[in-house]
Amino acid sequence: MRTIGIDVGGTKVLGVVLSADAPTDVLIEHRVPTPPGGEGLVAVLAELVDQLRAEGDVAAVGVGVPGLVDRAGVLRVGPHLPRLRDVPLADELAARTGVPVEVDNDANGHAVAEHRGGAAAGVDEALVVSFGTGIGAGIITGGKLLRGANGFAGEPGHMIVDPNGPPCPCGRRGCWERFASGTGLGRLARDAALGGRLDLAVDLAGGDPELVRGEHVTAAARQNDPDALGVLHELARWIAIGLANLANIVDPGIIVMGGGLVEAADLLLPPVRTHFGASLMAVDHRPAVPIVPAVLGEQAGAIGVALLAAELV
Amino acid sequence: MRTIGIDVGGTKVLGVVLSADAPTDVLIEHRVPTPPGGEGLVAVLAELVDQLRAEGDVAAVGVGVPGLVDRAGVLRVGPHLPRLRDVPLADELAARTGVPVEVDNDANGHAVAEHRGGAAAGVDEALVVSFGTGIGAGIITGGKLLRGANGFAGEPGHMIVDPNGPPCPCGRRGCWERFASGTGLGRLARDAALGGRLDLAVDLAGGDPELVRGEHVTAAARQNDPDALGVLHELARWIAIGLANLANIVDPGIIVMGGGLVEAADLLLPPVRTHFGASLMAVDHRPAVPIVPAVLGEQAGAIGVALLAAELV
Repeated sequence: MRTIGIDVGGTKVLGVVLSADAPTDVLIEHRVPTPPGGEGLVAVLAELVDQLRAEGDVAAVGVGVPGLVDRAGVLRVGPHLPRLRDVPLADELAARTGVPVEVDNDANGHAVAEHRGGAAAGVDEALVVSFGTGIGAGIITGGKLLRGANGFAGEPGHMIVDPNGPPCPCGRRGCWERFASGTGLGRLARDAALGGRLDLAVDLAGGDPELVRGEHVTAAARQNDPDALGVLHELARWIAIGLANLANIVDPGIIVMGGGLVEAADLLLPPVRTHFGASLMAVDHRPAVPIVPAVLGEQAGAIGVALLAAELV
Repeated sequence: MRTIGIDVGGTKVLGVVLSADAPTDVLIEHRVPTPPGGEGLVAVLAELVDQLRAEGDVAAVGVGVPGLVDRAGVLRVGPHLPRLRDVPLADELAARTGVPVEVDNDANGHAVAEHRGGAAAGVDEALVVSFGTGIGAGIITGGKLLRGANGFAGEPGHMIVDPNGPPCPCGRRGCWERFASGTGLGRLARDAALGGRLDLAVDLAGGDPELVRGEHVTAAARQNDPDALGVLHELARWIAIGLANLANIVDPGIIVMGGGLVEAADLLLPPVRTHFGASLMAVDHRPAVPIVPAVLGEQAGAIGVALLAAELV
C-alpha cells in the first residue's frame, strides 16, 4: 500500500505519497506553510495527511523534523520549532490519523532516500550531510541508519571545530555550522564585503555590503570573480574539515552533500575534495572517498521518512 | 577452546590466553618487546603464539595493532610501525601458526573488551576512547563494532578541533590528540612550566621545566597545587570538546575513558564531565551520558581481540 512522507522545514511542510510498487516514485505532492514556532504542528500534519490520502488509502506516515527526535518519535528540541519541546509527535499524529507514524530527524530521512534510491544507492556505508541554514546528517552503516542510544546520532552541526571561533546560537563557540552552512557562507561573505573585498557580489546585492548573501557570492563566482571564488574556497575548506572529521570517525564509503548549498556544487565540490584529501587521516593508505552531490532534491527528506514508515507495516 | 589475544604496543607486545568458559578470564600472560619500527613483527607474533599455546591448543588468534587495519587484516599504516605498510598481517600470521587470525585496530580491541566484560557491559551503544600517547577509539553500536567501509572507523585522534592549532606529526594542525592525549598533557605542562607557572611540578621533575611530564603535573595536582590543577582542567576541557563532538555524531549511551591518562581519572573525570555537559548539543533535552574509567587495564586490548578472534571459529 502507499505510504506518506512529510518533511517539516523551516518555512514549508512538504508531503509526498509514495507508490507501493516503486518506492522512490512520488505520486502526489502537497505543501503547506510551517506554523510559526511549530504551534499546532500536529493539527497541520493531520490535515496534510488527510489531503494526501484523499486519493487512496495509505499504510503508514513518516515525518521528518529538524531537531532531536528520540526512538519513540518524541521531538525533544528543534531549532525552528521553539513551541515544541518533548512532544510525542508520533503518538499524537497516529492517534489523529489512525495509521502507524514514524517520526525521525529530517536529515536521517535525506540519508535514507539517497541511500535507497539516490546518490548513495548500493553503498551500505554512507554519510549524507545536508548543508542548509544549519547542518544535518544521516549515517548509514550496514545499510541502516546509525541511530545511537537515543536516536540522536548524526548531528555534526554543533561539532566544535574552533573553540575560539564565532559564537553559535547554541551557546558554544566555533560549531561547524557557524562556518560550513548557508549561514556560514553568509557570514564569510559579509566579513569579506565589509572588509572592502567582494565588490561584484556587493553590486549584485544592490550595493550594500550588509545585504550580501550566499547567492550573490555564487553568482559573482560564476563570473570568475576572484574575491567570490576566494570566499567559496574558504567555505569549502571548512566543509572539508568537518567531513574529514566525520570520515575519521565513521569511515564512509561515499559522502553525499545535500541541502541548499548543493546548488553551488559545481563550484564547491572541487575545492572540497582537495581540502578533504588534505584533512583526512592517512589519505594515501586508504581508498578514495567519493564526495558527490545529492540527487533527489528537496523531496529527499519526505521520501526517506516515507521509506522508514513503510518498515512499520 | 582457548583463544589468544595479542596487543601490539609502542614498546611491548602483550599476549594473553583466554579460557573458553569464562571469556574475559586471562589464563596466561606473556610479554615481549615490540621490534623497533615493527621490523619482523610477524615472526615475533608467531613465536609468542607458540609460547602461549604450549600449555594447550588454541582455536584462534586475535591481534590488535595501533593503526589503520582493513577488514582483511592488512595493516595499512601505523604510527609506531613505520616498517610495516600495507602488510597482510592476518594472512601471514595464519600461515605461520595454522590457526585463524583476526587483526584489528588496538582501540577496537579495548572497546570490545570493555563492552563484553568491563565498564560498558550491558550498554550496546558505547564509545570507548583510549587516551595514551595518541587517541584511539572503538564505537560499539547495536552491540557490535562500528567498522565503516574499510574497517577504519573510530579514529578520532586526528579530528581537527582547531585548524590554527599546533602542528601534528600527521602534517595537519590542531588534531584532537595534540591537545587531549598524554602528549597533549606534556605540551600543556611544558608551556605552563616555561611560562613560569607550575613550580611544584618543575621541582618534582628535578628543576628543569623542559623535563616536566604529565606524571609530575598529576603528582603536583594531588598536592592541590593550583597551577597543576589548572593544567589538568585545560586538558579536561580539550578531552571534553572531542568527546562531545563524538557524542553528537554517534550518540553513545556511555563513554568509557581508557589509556594511560586514566591513572589520573579521579582528577580528570570531574572537570571532563562538567565541560562535556557544556559542549554537548541540547544537553538539557537528552539523557545524561555517563563518562566512566575503563576497568580492564592494560590487558583490555588483548582480551578484546581474543574475543573478536573467537568469532572466527
